[in-house]
Amino acid sequence: MSFRATILTLYPEMFPGHLGHSLAGKALERGQWSIKPVQIRDFAEDRHRTVDDTPAGGGAGMVLKPDILANAIDQVSGHDDRPRLLMSPRGRPLTQKRVRELAAGEGVVIVCGRFEGVDQRVIEARQLEEVSVGDYILSGGEPAALTLLDAVVRILPGVMGNALSGTHESFEDGLLEYPHYTRPQVFEGREIPPVLTSGNHAEIDKWRREQALSLTRERRPDLLQSGQD
Amino acid sequence: MSFRATILTLYPEMFPGHLGHSLAGKALERGQWSIKPVQIRDFAEDRHRTVDDTPAGGGAGMVLKPDILANAIDQVSGHDDRPRLLMSPRGRPLTQKRVRELAAGEGVVIVCGRFEGVDQRVIEARQLEEVSVGDYILSGGEPAALTLLDAVVRILPGVMGNALSGTHESFEDGLLEYPHYTRPQVFEGREIPPVLTSGNHAEIDKWRREQALSLTRERRPDLLQSGQD
Repeated sequence: MSFRATILTLYPEMFPGHLGHSLAGKALERGQWSIKPVQIRDFAEDRHRTVDDTPAGGGAGMVLKPDILANAIDQVSGHDDRPRLLMSPRGRPLTQKRVRELAAGEGVVIVCGRFEGVDQRVIEARQLEEVSVGDYILSGGEPAALTLLDAVVRILPGVMGNALSGTHESFEDGLLEYPHYTRPQVFEGREIPPVLTSGNHAEIDKWRREQALSLTRERRPDLLQSGQD
Repeated sequence: MSFRATILTLYPEMFPGHLGHSLAGKALERGQWSIKPVQIRDFAEDRHRTVDDTPAGGGAGMVLKPDILANAIDQVSGHDDRPRLLMSPRGRPLTQKRVRELAAGEGVVIVCGRFEGVDQRVIEARQLEEVSVGDYILSGGEPAALTLLDAVVRILPGVMGNALSGTHESFEDGLLEYPHYTRPQVFEGREIPPVLTSGNHAEIDKWRREQALSLTRERRPDLLQSGQD
């Protein structure tokens, strides 16, 4: 069975967005994964299709109503075991490990918030997993959902074909990736490091490992400390 | 002068993507910001429009050629001072502070890599600032560029109108945001915390601050340690 993504959003027109192009887009056409944006407003119960209300305790912004959102979640995911994610800067930071877990499953249901936030009670009552794509603020959950899905879709079986096989990637071994070079041999007076054209594969592997380590130490000492997954 | 984003990419059709909708899309139509995707292949010099080559030292994947990419960068940004970003998981993690700095400037030039990587010499020779949107691997720089631009565009003057004013956000004070509640008063047996409907604003502020602190301590102790910016 192919990977199924269902998106609860106020902006269904944002999907599949960039995922409709390139390899993800071709895989989507081939049915290797599917995406179904669902308009949250369709679950509103008044004629103005109201989905939000003012925050209890005061303050700016609006809050997505728990009853409407719970109803929407139940309708789209009442009968399956897909993880239910809420894209939110308050969430657990997305890691490549979580991406791999999601890609191994049958799909995801993703709730995209807009406005100030989502009522805390629906997060708890529907066991939404709050996921953050990074420590910055987006216009809503939609760009975050598209980013998460891009990471997941690219590692689904058959999506990238041979493009992935054998490649070494950042985070795979807890390190940032070593630098890359290709022809020409000299570019604006800068040469390719001689070891890379030496033909000595043991030396090349050693050099790359050292470069990855020193780059990680310089830019991301946190990865070395934490045993990043 | 409005914010100008120029994107060097092999997939210009991915832009403006989700940024063509909602408030960012309306601001784009009004000319409050602009986006210009530029096809890197247009700077190739052979009839096959080759932009990549095999990695020096061996290994899987392909590397974007430094000469072609340098030429493209010079053509689109030779005459301005906009920061030149390279979206890459090896980069410095994007923060809301960097988002605010970028939004205060005249725009950005963003290089989107695909394949295995970009020749290190063009990164150095053109002083590309490597930026990462998170610790996961995307299909290319395009989804990352769209995510970064979403964060920047939403805080450009006039884009979100009053929607932003007075709102409290995660990371603003180095803390995750406190939980939100709205009507109904009781949802599936769960009540809004009584303090929020007490009308005592000092108590409400205190409760929100405590919630933000305890949530941050539980989920993101790293933010409390590092004085996240």
